[in-house]
Amino acid sequence: MPQDIIEPRVLKGFRDFLPAQEAKRRDFTRRVEDAFLARGFVPIDTPALEYAEILLGKGGGETEKQIYRFKDHGDRDVALRFDLTVPFARFMAAHYHELYLPFRRYHIGKVWRGENTQRGRYREFCQCDCDIVGADSPGSDFEILSSMAAALEALGLGAFSIRVSHRGAFNLFLEGLGVKERSAEVLRIADKLRKIGPEETTSLLAAAIGAGPAERVKSFIGITGGIGEGVREMEALLGGECPATARLKEIEALAAETGIGKKIVLDASITRGLDYYTGIVFETYLDAMPGIGSVCSGGRYDDLASLYTKERIPGVGASIGMDRLLAALEEIGGEGETKSFVKALLVCADLRHLGQAFALAERLRGSETPVEVFTERKKIQQAFAYAEKKSISRAVILDEEYLRAGRYIIRDMRTRENSEASDFDGLVASLGRP
Amino acid sequence: MPQDIIEPRVLKGFRDFLPAQEAKRRDFTRRVEDAFLARGFVPIDTPALEYAEILLGKGGGETEKQIYRFKDHGDRDVALRFDLTVPFARFMAAHYHELYLPFRRYHIGKVWRGENTQRGRYREFCQCDCDIVGADSPGSDFEILSSMAAALEALGLGAFSIRVSHRGAFNLFLEGLGVKERSAEVLRIADKLRKIGPEETTSLLAAAIGAGPAERVKSFIGITGGIGEGVREMEALLGGECPATARLKEIEALAAETGIGKKIVLDASITRGLDYYTGIVFETYLDAMPGIGSVCSGGRYDDLASLYTKERIPGVGASIGMDRLLAALEEIGGEGETKSFVKALLVCADLRHLGQAFALAERLRGSETPVEVFTERKKIQQAFAYAEKKSISRAVILDEEYLRAGRYIIRDMRTRENSEASDFDGLVASLGRP
Repeated sequence: MPQDIIEPRVLKGFRDFLPAQEAKRRDFTRRVEDAFLARGFVPIDTPALEYAEILLGKGGGETEKQIYRFKDHGDRDVALRFDLTVPFARFMAAHYHELYLPFRRYHIGKVWRGENTQRGRYREFCQCDCDIVGADSPGSDFEILSSMAAALEALGLGAFSIRVSHRGAFNLFLEGLGVKERSAEVLRIADKLRKIGPEETTSLLAAAIGAGPAERVKSFIGITGGIGEGVREMEALLGGECPATARLKEIEALAAETGIGKKIVLDASITRGLDYYTGIVFETYLDAMPGIGSVCSGGRYDDLASLYTKERIPGVGASIGMDRLLAALEEIGGEGETKSFVKALLVCADLRHLGQAFALAERLRGSETPVEVFTERKKIQQAFAYAEKKSISRAVILDEEYLRAGRYIIRDMRTRENSEASDFDGLVASLGRP
Repeated sequence: MPQDIIEPRVLKGFRDFLPAQEAKRRDFTRRVEDAFLARGFVPIDTPALEYAEILLGKGGGETEKQIYRFKDHGDRDVALRFDLTVPFARFMAAHYHELYLPFRRYHIGKVWRGENTQRGRYREFCQCDCDIVGADSPGSDFEILSSMAAALEALGLGAFSIRVSHRGAFNLFLEGLGVKERSAEVLRIADKLRKIGPEETTSLLAAAIGAGPAERVKSFIGITGGIGEGVREMEALLGGECPATARLKEIEALAAETGIGKKIVLDASITRGLDYYTGIVFETYLDAMPGIGSVCSGGRYDDLASLYTKERIPGVGASIGMDRLLAALEEIGGEGETKSFVKALLVCADLRHLGQAFALAERLRGSETPVEVFTERKKIQQAFAYAEKKSISRAVILDEEYLRAGRYIIRDMRTRENSEASDFDGLVASLGRP
């Protein structure tokens, strides 16, 4: 039956993940998950598709333009989730009375936005969120910060700093300056300091609130360094301690006792543009790659789910930019070399011995040595070529000699040199070497 | 600002996954993945959303009615994937020349179908597929069967049997009977044998191809047992060896050498309704729960991606019914008791010691002992209640005595009895006990 071929294309802004990429993504995800699980965070999941009314909430604006929204078979107005925060709010409202508080959850999943793809953004991407809700304590603030530090350490991306500030301190400062009513605008401008530099920031601020106040704001958002010293500077500008600086000091005390103190610094320019946040706010930068921007951001909010319930649910949370981290990693290429999960490819010189290869493979897996069996009737050189393409670092050749004398030939795929192991334990030891 | 509350409901056929369920799902997924990875399978992923033309292919019929399909912002005709097979075919066509063959891949992901939910079906569910493409060998057939056996063993669901047959043998038999042109219908009827019983099957067959041939088909599909014996019975009915029975014997030889022989049985009634399959076909039943149906099914096909490429890509694959397995597990409730990932909740008698609790927690995590720190200013009884609700089996109480003498109080949350550990190693040992 002759037929037309359909072109196997994917939608713009969407991606296939080839094995090397997907294996890296899954490995990343597991490491982050393990860090969360080891701290009492538990996973949840929510539907990809929800009532549009729920996802849009008060919505409108940018979100409405970007959301994938349509009528389903039952003529319901539905949409694909565009983040994990809104579904979490709906989830908490729906399950509030089944859950224990404080509720520590993480959620890793795909979200969809019909964004302009010209800026290198994707329309399907992975989010990784972690929150503690139903708690308003310094301990929960610190737990989020230290859990993020642990997750980033697990990813092995080198040194980083978590740059923390507090919305309450900034708001109080603006109030003192008499520019409280312009605070949303000032926060947005301050947030750009890292991008546009102090001069541009000051002139934008001056245009918004006048030159005098702009200079004072510039001093405030210029505060950066260890929390202890930074808080003292803040308090000098604020005229004393306030609940926000007291909270920052409590966090610092916890950080000092656990030794992650050096990873957390105060940076008063961090405001996180969103209205949503009311307490601490933070962003995280890799020392080696500051240019890629914040790889993990978050903060404290007063009320997560007011759209869906009358229960007030305060919380603190963070979001790890998995796609950004992976893209960065690919760019530096440091860990770029892909390694196969299996330690070796078992190759039979004669396919009559394939059953014995399968048996040996199971025995090796039982000794923590994952291996793959080459099952095809091909020349041995073709098996080697396959191993190379798949980045499998060794081949084990089973020939008549092996079957007679129990001797294994091990080929290093990089050096193309053969060595021998005279028994099973020797084989395991050889395959375990890096 | 007073506002209306939006009811936090989910769409019919969609589900929230609460922590106990989601943790189980993720644990299941990891175990299956580890079994795949240890055999050289590599992960891929594809977009949730694709061109409708690609997903529907020649399509129409049931698929067209169930698929979530809509126009995106660019007026493209798009749809949510309804399985992982069609995207895999498109993927292979798109990346054929970048990949090494035979290509062993697994893919775990969500799919969406706007099905009638009355039969207890969900509109969003997880699929878990595993294939070897670009190979037509007995070794690759066997690899799929043994990998499925390994994955199911990793799930710890007790004994199971993989019931195998071969489409080629059945087709040859029907050809011999002179009813080849009715083979699609006969295959569909035979496939129901386990559900409707032999009598009903025979009368349906008689109506389709006449009483005489129906009796002969009944004999054929009644063949069941060890592959060796079963193949001999098949060959007796077929009048000798054919490529299909030769293939089954090769698979049996491999199974015998690796010791998974007993898990694989021949069952000539297995046909897997779909036209798609051309070689071995199989289904898998749990001994303890035959009623839930096949938990892992698949087979060999001639040509995966003919809709999207002129390359002929034969392969063999399987799909594990993760949702079915999880639902079954919940029903028997055997493993129903949820256990927390963390081994203990660390509770401070006085929050001034919270920093020390965080430091102890990190030290414990470094000794393979995940723990959670209770961060709230609550009565100790409330911390215990929290641990109980979260199924954390122990609490470690840090009081003045601990801080003075380095002595830990460990509370068993089930027995509500306290014990003591006099040093860190003793604490690790206590928390490691089941």
